[in-house]
Amino acid sequence: MAKNDSVSNSVIKRLPRYYRFLGELKEKGIVRISSKDLSEKMGFTASQIRQDLNCFGGFGQQGYGYNIESLYNEIGNILGVNKTRKAIIIGAGNLGKAVALHMSFEERGFNIIGIFDRNPALTGQMLRGLPIRHTDGLYDFCKDNSPVVAILCIPNYAAENLAPQLVELGIKGFWNFSHYDISTNYPGVAVENVHLSDSLMTLSYHVSNLDD
Amino acid sequence: MAKNDSVSNSVIKRLPRYYRFLGELKEKGIVRISSKDLSEKMGFTASQIRQDLNCFGGFGQQGYGYNIESLYNEIGNILGVNKTRKAIIIGAGNLGKAVALHMSFEERGFNIIGIFDRNPALTGQMLRGLPIRHTDGLYDFCKDNSPVVAILCIPNYAAENLAPQLVELGIKGFWNFSHYDISTNYPGVAVENVHLSDSLMTLSYHVSNLDD
Repeated sequence: MAKNDSVSNSVIKRLPRYYRFLGELKEKGIVRISSKDLSEKMGFTASQIRQDLNCFGGFGQQGYGYNIESLYNEIGNILGVNKTRKAIIIGAGNLGKAVALHMSFEERGFNIIGIFDRNPALTGQMLRGLPIRHTDGLYDFCKDNSPVVAILCIPNYAAENLAPQLVELGIKGFWNFSHYDISTNYPGVAVENVHLSDSLMTLSYHVSNLDD
Repeated sequence: MAKNDSVSNSVIKRLPRYYRFLGELKEKGIVRISSKDLSEKMGFTASQIRQDLNCFGGFGQQGYGYNIESLYNEIGNILGVNKTRKAIIIGAGNLGKAVALHMSFEERGFNIIGIFDRNPALTGQMLRGLPIRHTDGLYDFCKDNSPVVAILCIPNYAAENLAPQLVELGIKGFWNFSHYDISTNYPGVAVENVHLSDSLMTLSYHVSNLDD
């Protein structure tokens, strides 16, 4: 498949959605779909879909539509969900626990190899089949096991304190639930932020504007 | 304060971030900040910040910068976080529990008045000081208590099944953790989606591209 460094962030953000929709169609046993039908299901225009997929070399045949399984597999390859990168979760509070238990990491290209929390009361408790480790052991664990992705389910200040150590230990990607802004300080790493409270405030704004 | 219906979504998405940053500065006892300093802290350009805040009438005085507390309060008003809307959480599994326990709803303008799950084994368990109710009681509860926001921590199909009932019962805003696309089916309601697995796949893409 063609890779393209100039693919815009908004196209990249839409790829997971294509992947999900195509996965659902595949589950239903549907073999082929026109870009028109795909666009109706997804709420994008057909031309938008063609443009998006053309960024990666295009997959449709004029007049035949898209083969769902092959498009699904290709987008999966582009997203890299078939790879297996070693990942660690830092923070095993309410949020960390939910993230650990709720997400299908393996289907998204990640293998959780360690879970850490600085609360000694949690040390040794099992989560997702793994013992929660104390953050004091983070350095040795990373040296021995070389995880490349860290999932930060910790507060701002803790993320700010840990980030330099994690980058030095070889972490190249962060799934960041904290509000600490990793990307401005470490431009070389991949960061995907989930700012739940920002999302809730955005909802508040939209609900307020309905009130009027 | 001025309201403006033509405010772009990207400006709205940035408002919570301003609110957070200003809140942190306020906590530190800082009284005033120039748009230049604010821009350095936030990673936006100073002119971007002036433009954003001008959408709502502007708050700065040329040469004096921004009064932090007053800007914080104004943005809070715009976001509507000082209001109190009745909200219900649907789904008390790992994710629902984490959302219920982790988020400061009251500080974001929401008051959680009920938590529902269709698993009878959870009925009556306490969460966030509230008893988990069975979803069979959703209709009567909404009739009696008139919540306006629903937080969906349930799978796709469950969200699709419940959405029409919830809209009919007066729900005007959804914080949607499911992948069911509410907004295309109910254009009149406010929807804010949190698609965690899409975010994880986006990270996968970015980490893959670092590998190259």
